[in-house]
Amino acid sequence: MTPLSLRLQSTPMGKTLTLTFSSPPSPPPMAVLVTAFRGRARLSTAGPVRASRHPLSGMDDALMGFISGKTKATELAHSIWENVVRKGDVVVDATCGNGHDTFALLKMVADESVRGCVYGLDIQNSAVEYTSSLLDASLEPKKRELVKLLCICHSKMEDIIPKSIPIRLVAFNLGYLPGGDKAVITKPQTTLLALQAASRIIESGGLISVMVYIGHPGGREELETVQAFASHLPTDTWTSCRLETLNRPTAPVLVLVFKK
Amino acid sequence: MTPLSLRLQSTPMGKTLTLTFSSPPSPPPMAVLVTAFRGRARLSTAGPVRASRHPLSGMDDALMGFISGKTKATELAHSIWENVVRKGDVVVDATCGNGHDTFALLKMVADESVRGCVYGLDIQNSAVEYTSSLLDASLEPKKRELVKLLCICHSKMEDIIPKSIPIRLVAFNLGYLPGGDKAVITKPQTTLLALQAASRIIESGGLISVMVYIGHPGGREELETVQAFASHLPTDTWTSCRLETLNRPTAPVLVLVFKK
Repeated sequence: MTPLSLRLQSTPMGKTLTLTFSSPPSPPPMAVLVTAFRGRARLSTAGPVRASRHPLSGMDDALMGFISGKTKATELAHSIWENVVRKGDVVVDATCGNGHDTFALLKMVADESVRGCVYGLDIQNSAVEYTSSLLDASLEPKKRELVKLLCICHSKMEDIIPKSIPIRLVAFNLGYLPGGDKAVITKPQTTLLALQAASRIIESGGLISVMVYIGHPGGREELETVQAFASHLPTDTWTSCRLETLNRPTAPVLVLVFKK
Repeated sequence: MTPLSLRLQSTPMGKTLTLTFSSPPSPPPMAVLVTAFRGRARLSTAGPVRASRHPLSGMDDALMGFISGKTKATELAHSIWENVVRKGDVVVDATCGNGHDTFALLKMVADESVRGCVYGLDIQNSAVEYTSSLLDASLEPKKRELVKLLCICHSKMEDIIPKSIPIRLVAFNLGYLPGGDKAVITKPQTTLLALQAASRIIESGGLISVMVYIGHPGGREELETVQAFASHLPTDTWTSCRLETLNRPTAPVLVLVFKK
């Protein structure tokens, strides 16, 4: 349904966009989905047409929450991913860990009608098992099939992702597996190789998202490696930025690398 | 129209409230009014229209623009201010410069019915004159009166702002006056005093926003001073964060200090 008219007005309260639509000849049942997300009500679908994209896009809430200390950097990252990833996309969770990111990513690429794909990688078998259990318990079999889990170092992602497939997002959550062996951590050398691999497979308009934990031994060195990689990317094809909390010295740092 | 059913569900992404409505017997012309206010899209009435993702959500666009290299940090800062500042608030532009921030802040605090106040400070008389000219040319006299311009060092802001007034935002744009004498720059010592003053006058829920330019001699030292100040604020009453572009080494750094 296309609007009959569209009018943009400046008012003292801001700008008002009014769209007027014709009544359909035989109206289908109307449904409104209002999503309460982090305390604020949002309308995501109105009428019989389902939103095909980002029904829970609360990036302004997430950024203000991050600035005011109410929202973790991980939640801000998810919110940013939701603005990059589209239904049907192929994305990579380069460090599955406990599987929460893998699960969140699947929700972003797939719905009832559109099918995407998530490659979930982790060098630790226990992480792949955690993730697999979470997905098995949370997803119907058809959706579960859209996640390909592999116990492999993230630096080898090109070995398992077909070259012809455009990748919209590669997400990294560095450091150690929560609840796992803290001696097993991602290392600067392989993280750098993984970032280089990600930069080769990411499509234009895609994002490499790196959450760097710096509270454990080796964390700050890894941050230096990630920053050096992101800082030296040519500005004609890449933009890289860093978001961090300053007065919590061990809070994770979010590095975002966008392919123009 | 009242909902036929209402259902609240917890999902991994948050809470979802679903309201289902019956079709009215004779559907009225359907209209959707979307209001953009402080960068946030609001839906005030809904018919069976195509769902669109926050068409006028300014901060979503600003943050994604910043991440993708299309939006400057200054625009992102304005978008964040719009989410902090309310009509009627009193705010401080600690470094008027060419007056653009002062003008933008007045638009945020005042409208036809609600009156706020902007204190605009600059140590350089030429900056106060630029700002005054811009405001005189752009504002009707009643609104122009809401801006108090003073040629004074920002470290002295407490000398001119009454102690009883809650301040919602103090904005700093450090470095030199664009188009002015590049030898006249803000200095770490007075910037630190100004930040300390700002932290004494800012109200709970208010923000100190510091745009730090690092491309000129002394810029990086000033960034160190700002970061040291922001990093040492107690976490029970403050949250401070930093946003920066990594692969443009002289791009400004945005430091945000939020009073809980």
